Amino acid sequence: MPAPAQFVEFVDTHADKFIQRLADAVAIPSVSGEAGRREDVVKMAHWLNGQLNSLGVTTELRDLGKHVMDGQELSLPPAILGRMGDDPKKKTILIYGHFDVQPAFKSDGWDTEPFKLVIDSKTGRLIGRGSTDDKGPIMGWLNVLETHKSLGLELPVNLRFCFEGMEESGSEGLDDLIVSETKKGKEGWFDGVDCVCISDNYWLNDRTPCLTYGLRGLSYFKIVVQGPARDLHSGMFGRAVHEPMTDLIALMSKLVTPDGKILVPGVDEMVPAADDEEKKIYNSLDYSIADVEDAVGGKIAISADKATVLMGRMRMPSLSLHGIEGAFYGAGAKTVIPAKVSGKFSIRLVPPQTPDKINPLVVKYLESEFAKLNSKNQLSVECLHGGKPWVADIKHWNYEAAIKATQAVYKKQPDLTREGGSIPVTLTFAESLGVNVLLLPMGRGDDGAHSTNEKLDRSNYIEGTKLLGTYLYEAAAISA
Amino acid sequence: MPAPAQFVEFVDTHADKFIQRLADAVAIPSVSGEAGRREDVVKMAHWLNGQLNSLGVTTELRDLGKHVMDGQELSLPPAILGRMGDDPKKKTILIYGHFDVQPAFKSDGWDTEPFKLVIDSKTGRLIGRGSTDDKGPIMGWLNVLETHKSLGLELPVNLRFCFEGMEESGSEGLDDLIVSETKKGKEGWFDGVDCVCISDNYWLNDRTPCLTYGLRGLSYFKIVVQGPARDLHSGMFGRAVHEPMTDLIALMSKLVTPDGKILVPGVDEMVPAADDEEKKIYNSLDYSIADVEDAVGGKIAISADKATVLMGRMRMPSLSLHGIEGAFYGAGAKTVIPAKVSGKFSIRLVPPQTPDKINPLVVKYLESEFAKLNSKNQLSVECLHGGKPWVADIKHWNYEAAIKATQAVYKKQPDLTREGGSIPVTLTFAESLGVNVLLLPMGRGDDGAHSTNEKLDRSNYIEGTKLLGTYLYEAAAISA
Ligand SMILES: [Zn+2]
Ligand SMILES: [Zn+2]
Repeated sequence: MPAPAQFVEFVDTHADKFIQRLADAVAIPSVSGEAGRREDVVKMAHWLNGQLNSLGVTTELRDLGKHVMDGQELSLPPAILGRMGDDPKKKTILIYGHFDVQPAFKSDGWDTEPFKLVIDSKTGRLIGRGSTDDKGPIMGWLNVLETHKSLGLELPVNLRFCFEGMEESGSEGLDDLIVSETKKGKEGWFDGVDCVCISDNYWLNDRTPCLTYGLRGLSYFKIVVQGPARDLHSGMFGRAVHEPMTDLIALMSKLVTPDGKILVPGVDEMVPAADDEEKKIYNSLDYSIADVEDAVGGKIAISADKATVLMGRMRMPSLSLHGIEGAFYGAGAKTVIPAKVSGKFSIRLVPPQTPDKINPLVVKYLESEFAKLNSKNQLSVECLHGGKPWVADIKHWNYEAAIKATQAVYKKQPDLTREGGSIPVTLTFAESLGVNVLLLPMGRGDDGAHSTNEKLDRSNYIEGTKLLGTYLYEAAAISA
Repeated sequence: MPAPAQFVEFVDTHADKFIQRLADAVAIPSVSGEAGRREDVVKMAHWLNGQLNSLGVTTELRDLGKHVMDGQELSLPPAILGRMGDDPKKKTILIYGHFDVQPAFKSDGWDTEPFKLVIDSKTGRLIGRGSTDDKGPIMGWLNVLETHKSLGLELPVNLRFCFEGMEESGSEGLDDLIVSETKKGKEGWFDGVDCVCISDNYWLNDRTPCLTYGLRGLSYFKIVVQGPARDLHSGMFGRAVHEPMTDLIALMSKLVTPDGKILVPGVDEMVPAADDEEKKIYNSLDYSIADVEDAVGGKIAISADKATVLMGRMRMPSLSLHGIEGAFYGAGAKTVIPAKVSGKFSIRLVPPQTPDKINPLVVKYLESEFAKLNSKNQLSVECLHGGKPWVADIKHWNYEAAIKATQAVYKKQPDLTREGGSIPVTLTFAESLGVNVLLLPMGRGDDGAHSTNEKLDRSNYIEGTKLLGTYLYEAAAISA
């Protein structure tokens, strides 16, 4: 059951009005990471709440308490819980989005004012902070609701909404809210939810729509090596004492090879190898080695084999060395022997890896490698934070519906992708609700979500609005 | 020919007056590293010049031009050239010292006002900035001159003086001055100099006087590895691209072992091994492994063998890893793949090593090790700066005189030591004048030259004054 023709037609004929809605949203500089913009995040919550109410959504602004930022105690912006439809014969879909944005200053290198949506008629780009991350997708849902209200159409599913204003600053308070609304039983806002749809990521490229069914987890480590009571002069003590930096660099060099193989025994081995069939999936993705190299700005792909590079990003763990705290980091030349140095690295995890399974392997390996150094310095290893990976069942009707909707709107088979990074709320929804979660992106890989000149292509916004609506109809039509 | 008994007696009976001279010098806060104190460095130059003149020394204040500090153009403080005696039958000894000091604020942790000399009658310590580095030794020379003037004694040698006010800030302008005064022929201030005596270092410990006859040189390196055009997100690109940090850490791990062996082929090998006789010298020094570990504040000596530890510091090259520029260095956890990272390390050099001989070995080794990594990132190696090592002939009469003077004053055999660090002016004197240079310290190893609560023990100041005077008599007595 594709969406009714009048739905699609209405979206096309009201495109300018929908773009104005996005412009209104972008104009509120709801930067969650700046204390001075906190009022604007709250203003954005009220603006969005007003839109939802006017389109028939029952809502509640939920206070999430206070937190400290830049030494200042601030109230967290409220989360918005919403409900539309309670028909027990319909499926119930929970929509997530965030109405806060990354900081942006024209002086960062923007060509236009970041909080004024600029429509570039030559390229079709809608340029402004939050256009693609994540105001565009939220406006897409409002557009779907407005279209139905205007046409007097009934929605094919029940909807629940969860919109937050702290995503760019760690989603403070959200996990507790989700868990509590799930646990409440018949009184919880998320009772009876059949699946979740999140639009907060991007296509792999600028050509082919995708659905994302996996995210990597993370274990972040700090290796501390210390010896002398204070920094030493290398002239005075070089070759007289064990230097913490020598030991730390030796340890850090034993973690990963230049081509990405993780040397901690048991880590790579925990992941089943891809068979030929799975490799085919990666080879068929519309994402080439050249796309990867374009994106990073250097011809440094880890392999000449496309499947190897894409699997390295999507279905393999990775280990990156981030830096060292406590050593000399400035420009110029300083002849110090640092007294205490802390190496930082992290491992991106894929199923069945979890921090609980990985961390002991890492700690044990580092301790045994350190013992081999025969150094009199002291080692300690800390696990700073972590998160589990997530992979969804792509045979679920939630994905089936999204695939059909993509085919209907874009006339293309979507790429089915896993992403290398984390969107922690995904795992929270999947684990606390126990339902299928779908990542259904609206924007393209070159949108520059956290960068200067963030944009959403007009066609992605308008076709994306159709996609979201069509997805609801396809979901409703499948017998679950 | 020891010093006349009346010389020694006069120094003892005038100790309080000499301490007052040191107090007057400490009271002028001649910090060369702070633009706001530049006037005080100039004031100190004029005060010292007045003292020299009143004691019969012919002097010239030499303008060294201007330089830029903290974005401000400043006149360099003048250097003082001095001359006393022109008897062709006498030896001519050049004395070097510096009248500038390190910065000091009570708030740094001083127990007393840094620029007010405090006499701790219980410990015998003279506490104040510059007391030991390097105003104490300069005052020692003035005390020797005053004693001779008061007693109507003729000096046994001709003296030349070179006092500067920028030593703690890179000795700007001094090298050129020394070279030009040497090259001038009969008109140069340093014409006819037979040897040099520098009092600007310290005993190894707080017990045994020492003479220092060697200093290590330095080659400072920067290893730059770069790949992507910008910093990357480790979730997005971990295991998809070659990461510069992985390559850099691999290279840095191949430079030195935890017990100090340098892995660059040809570097350690360039230094002849010590034979048993030389090892005996190190074993006989009054400096133990416990002294080293006390000084660094940790039980981290590189070996349980005393000679190995002391030779590591004094007569072997050492390689220290200082840090990384461009990587994450803060507290906390950041999941960045840095785009361009620069590893900093340096090698302390000993004869016959020089930067010219060592640098090509290092560059070649790093390039060949990088090639083995099979990385698509780019490597470049820079040599930031360097200096040659220096070792003096301890059989020279200059050292013979200092040994006899030490025996006469302290009733002890001095430790003959080499130091791990550099005092660049030493090499300039040795190379441009082509004469023997002696480092004859006045203070003790625990004086805290660049630290809080800098002190010079009263006995080191008074016996040190006797030592300097006696050294002149012993030098005069030896038939060169
Ligand atoms: Zn987002
Ligand atoms: Zn000094």
